[in-house]
Amino acid sequence: MSHDLIEKLFVRYFDNEILQQQGDSALLKLPANTISFTTDSFVVDPLFFSGGNIGKLAIAGTVNDLAVSGAEPLYMSASFIIEEGFSLNELEEIVKTMAQEAKKAGVKIVTGDTKVVDRGKCDKVFINTTGVGYLPKKNRVISSGEKIKPGDKIIINGSIADHGMCIMAARNDLNISSAIKSDCAPLNGLIKEALAVSNNIKFMRDATRGGISTILNELVSGKEFGLEIDEKEIVVHENVKGICELLGFDPFYVANEGKVIMVVAPEDASKVIETIKKNEFGKEASIIGEITEAHPGKGWIITGIGGRRVIDMLAGKQLPRIC
Amino acid sequence: MSHDLIEKLFVRYFDNEILQQQGDSALLKLPANTISFTTDSFVVDPLFFSGGNIGKLAIAGTVNDLAVSGAEPLYMSASFIIEEGFSLNELEEIVKTMAQEAKKAGVKIVTGDTKVVDRGKCDKVFINTTGVGYLPKKNRVISSGEKIKPGDKIIINGSIADHGMCIMAARNDLNISSAIKSDCAPLNGLIKEALAVSNNIKFMRDATRGGISTILNELVSGKEFGLEIDEKEIVVHENVKGICELLGFDPFYVANEGKVIMVVAPEDASKVIETIKKNEFGKEASIIGEITEAHPGKGWIITGIGGRRVIDMLAGKQLPRIC
Repeated sequence: MSHDLIEKLFVRYFDNEILQQQGDSALLKLPANTISFTTDSFVVDPLFFSGGNIGKLAIAGTVNDLAVSGAEPLYMSASFIIEEGFSLNELEEIVKTMAQEAKKAGVKIVTGDTKVVDRGKCDKVFINTTGVGYLPKKNRVISSGEKIKPGDKIIINGSIADHGMCIMAARNDLNISSAIKSDCAPLNGLIKEALAVSNNIKFMRDATRGGISTILNELVSGKEFGLEIDEKEIVVHENVKGICELLGFDPFYVANEGKVIMVVAPEDASKVIETIKKNEFGKEASIIGEITEAHPGKGWIITGIGGRRVIDMLAGKQLPRIC
Repeated sequence: MSHDLIEKLFVRYFDNEILQQQGDSALLKLPANTISFTTDSFVVDPLFFSGGNIGKLAIAGTVNDLAVSGAEPLYMSASFIIEEGFSLNELEEIVKTMAQEAKKAGVKIVTGDTKVVDRGKCDKVFINTTGVGYLPKKNRVISSGEKIKPGDKIIINGSIADHGMCIMAARNDLNISSAIKSDCAPLNGLIKEALAVSNNIKFMRDATRGGISTILNELVSGKEFGLEIDEKEIVVHENVKGICELLGFDPFYVANEGKVIMVVAPEDASKVIETIKKNEFGKEASIIGEITEAHPGKGWIITGIGGRRVIDMLAGKQLPRIC
């Protein structure tokens, strides 16, 4: 598998007028000069799973990091580290998926790099994607969350823990694995629709590694407000719940790849919910809690049976190679 | 070695006001809305070598890709894939070097990512850097090379093959290895100085993987002009020449990490040479050849003894993990 062959593959699938310049850098004209910029390396194991593959993840992950900052994802780089002897067919499948997902998300892959390492020096393929998005002026305060106030509603666009448990099931060769599908999806369309109906979305973050608990914890940590989550409003699919119990995971700490947590002013919350429910990635959206004046710096979960438990940071090691 | 520990390391050394926002994306204000955008993954083996380490390479490589497009490097992402059990001291040494080199080059590392994989699933550490630079209007034609004409001079800022042979010597445990130092260096300063004295720099490219032959070949391939290189103007240090002969490499095909090839209008060539000779990375700069009307699409080397040989693309496999 030569460099040349691989690069032809990328040019064929990622084809666009900027990539065709074929320099070592891409020249980009942006609609304005304030941008959002983000990077992620993807090392997921296995490479292919129900609902996606490493390529889909590499596009969706970076698109989502841009979108939650309030930016419109525009351009992306893609860099591959490939193990000598990795199947060209599988690589083509991954690249094809990336091209499809990039098209869906409306981003162009404009520059890239390939390194091949000897057998045993990496695990099949690792992908880095780095994204550039245009940040409209009105969205510039979203990423800091500085406008958040007690009474604001906390929204999520659907069920939790699907991605992490899909990967764990696949890795453990559990028979039920086929039933759990990763939620991996680019959310920029859904987010754009929500931002179009409300100027009061005050914070967004995609709940990836560390799950929703990690985001909810960061949201209040060191702040003058707290939050409360109503556990019965959190959707956990039955098969995901089952495998969480089987393997001993708390779904609140399990990675998602297509879930955004939003903080929205109370007067706009139902409008935002209605809008995102119409999107294919928001059908199970719900208001899961709110920002409180009480217990500043702390998040509490109101459990199904009326109890309360604090939302901690994940203790111990994160699951490796979930994304 | 926990994620937390690693991320603290990055924040400590790469410290700047944008990184401190600590979102998943960095918000950047650029001086204008035309940018240059480039990515590279670094997998060099060994990690530490005479004249640098993987961290220096990761900064210089991306800075140089931006600079040769005519852009001023401004911001960079840094993404790490780390093998479980990799020495925290070595990681710190690499990160420290990256911070120093970024400072020298005047770029800020504004966002990042870390993935840890099990022992044996990568080789110590791989680093991706992706860069954003501001592209002044007058430099926008450089990267296409569309203004190149017969008679234009071809310039290089110094000796060739140092980086590749430094790595090969280190890898082969040759005793002479200590004498060969990689030329790894950020060239944006030198390039900026050259652009300040001449509006007739028509093309620039850093001669990395594949060496100067690959760049010279690409420069004329499919074009209506050719080029001629005067072999006696090419500087190859004696120790590099020696190891090239020993290991059977042609220095024209060996990677550099601090060398830029420029095509300059004849009336500006000596002015540009004088300027870059004053820079610490340009002391051995020379005019190595010129663009010709003759043999369009082909580059020829006029050898020391008055013979000629054609500049081919590298036949066979490139050296793996040189950068």
